[in-house]
Amino acid sequence: MLVDAKMIAVVTGIPGTGKTTVANKAMDLLRKEGIDYEMVTYGTVMIEIAKSKGIVGNRDDMRKLDSETQRMIQELAAENIAGMEGNILVDTHCTIKTPRGYLPGLPEWVLRKLKPDAVILIEATPKEISTRRGCDKSRSRDDESVEWIALHQEMNRNISAAYSVFTGATVKVIQNPQGKIEEAAEAMAEVLR
Amino acid sequence: MLVDAKMIAVVTGIPGTGKTTVANKAMDLLRKEGIDYEMVTYGTVMIEIAKSKGIVGNRDDMRKLDSETQRMIQELAAENIAGMEGNILVDTHCTIKTPRGYLPGLPEWVLRKLKPDAVILIEATPKEISTRRGCDKSRSRDDESVEWIALHQEMNRNISAAYSVFTGATVKVIQNPQGKIEEAAEAMAEVLR
Amino acid sequence: MLVDAKMIAVVTGIPGTGKTTVANKAMDLLRKEGIDYEMVTYGTVMIEIAKSKGIVGNRDDMRKLDSETQRMIQELAAENIAGMEGNILVDTHCTIKTPRGYLPGLPEWVLRKLKPDAVILIEATPKEISTRRGCDKSRSRDDESVEWIALHQEMNRNISAAYSVFTGATVKVIQNPQGKIEEAAEAMAEVLR
Repeated sequence: MLVDAKMIAVVTGIPGTGKTTVANKAMDLLRKEGIDYEMVTYGTVMIEIAKSKGIVGNRDDMRKLDSETQRMIQELAAENIAGMEGNILVDTHCTIKTPRGYLPGLPEWVLRKLKPDAVILIEATPKEISTRRGCDKSRSRDDESVEWIALHQEMNRNISAAYSVFTGATVKVIQNPQGKIEEAAEAMAEVLR
Repeated sequence: MLVDAKMIAVVTGIPGTGKTTVANKAMDLLRKEGIDYEMVTYGTVMIEIAKSKGIVGNRDDMRKLDSETQRMIQELAAENIAGMEGNILVDTHCTIKTPRGYLPGLPEWVLRKLKPDAVILIEATPKEISTRRGCDKSRSRDDESVEWIALHQEMNRNISAAYSVFTGATVKVIQNPQGKIEEAAEAMAEVLR
Repeated sequence: MLVDAKMIAVVTGIPGTGKTTVANKAMDLLRKEGIDYEMVTYGTVMIEIAKSKGIVGNRDDMRKLDSETQRMIQELAAENIAGMEGNILVDTHCTIKTPRGYLPGLPEWVLRKLKPDAVILIEATPKEISTRRGCDKSRSRDDESVEWIALHQEMNRNISAAYSVFTGATVKVIQNPQGKIEEAAEAMAEVLR
């Protein structure tokens, strides 16, 4: 009865939360302790699989695929990542904002193959996100408003709860307010440690 | 690799959100573009099935059924709707408020058969819903209070996230504030288009 | 077509909500009406199973188990409870706060065996919970702050929605504000009746 040897963690955060910076700092902290993670971008793995199968020529072609083919590639990507050696940090979206609404980043057929141990949500206040995105009032579209940013983060929390029921994964919500990047990175390292 | 030919969308909204008006206006907009949807009420399909099987004589008998029979009819209704021709808009409840708590409108055995492509939540502010329901203070029951309306809408958002993980369906939240019915209908049409 | 004979209800509530007091008062009310419930603590059932199998010697050993063994015991406990006679009230956590984030109290493999009919969430305002826990400002840790209490309760609502999709269980949110214990107990009795 050994402690599990390998971790698969998922890190999510909408643009403007500082997800990538927090994740990189957390991985730096862990490297100093001798704990290594490989960071993998879900979308990139999907494109590589689609290219290798001759389904698409480039990234833009992905959008044109019918939903059945997209699901198949999504599932293959999950299998591919689950089969990688060592600790894996998967960079993906909790939900993807589309004109048809929020699309789950990790639907059932992905969760069944990926089997993540932890889901990490990097968050910031909607106001800070709006500022970081450089949305000044003059050019802000309705979709970028503070209210819609709040809704997107709320839906991410809601859906992460469902992810955890399917997988048993823990869900960690980490606030990344201006000037508190060290604290956010340490909180993330605590999940990955 | 064709784009999916048929859409099954679910539209929900608690009483007072203006769900039916928004849905009808959205279908009008789409008809002008040559896109047709048939609107189907989940509860009505269930009653028809139960009647045709001689299980109930009328709508009121439905409540008296044991939960196993109800589930069976619920599942048959999902199969029935999934087998219909053309684009389908399913009018149902995200959650149903009962004395025992919120009951899921689309539990797993329904989702597995219905396989919706999109879930649409028509919302309004709890205050506006309360006004539209005609709940003046003198006769408002505890259950109709602004706080409980807010909780019901929150639970609908929460559960719709779980629906999307099971099915891959998108979840669209549409606000329908007083005097903005055209915008709400256009947002709904964008999902169904 | 009989009404279901047996109920399995789950009661949850973070420390400071008064969960146990409300549950006991609700069971008292029902006993007077001739309705009996046996209260079972999920964690205790798990420990008994692990002890009987010689896996652990005491409660503290449980934490040291690898996650696969924990899951196996969790699943056996669910089977055990589902097989008990009469109405059962299961005292457990909706989510468990760990350094790695919120862990689901009822992951899929538990839900599939336990098949609860109702999930009850006892809540209080974060401020009241903080006071009841005796967190005066001088010694309160960040984790015990009002904001984190609010997040824990929010995650419990989110995850209970997913529980209901898997099982068809109703979800009842019950507020237990200071001095309103009778109302909270009556609301809980309404679910169990």
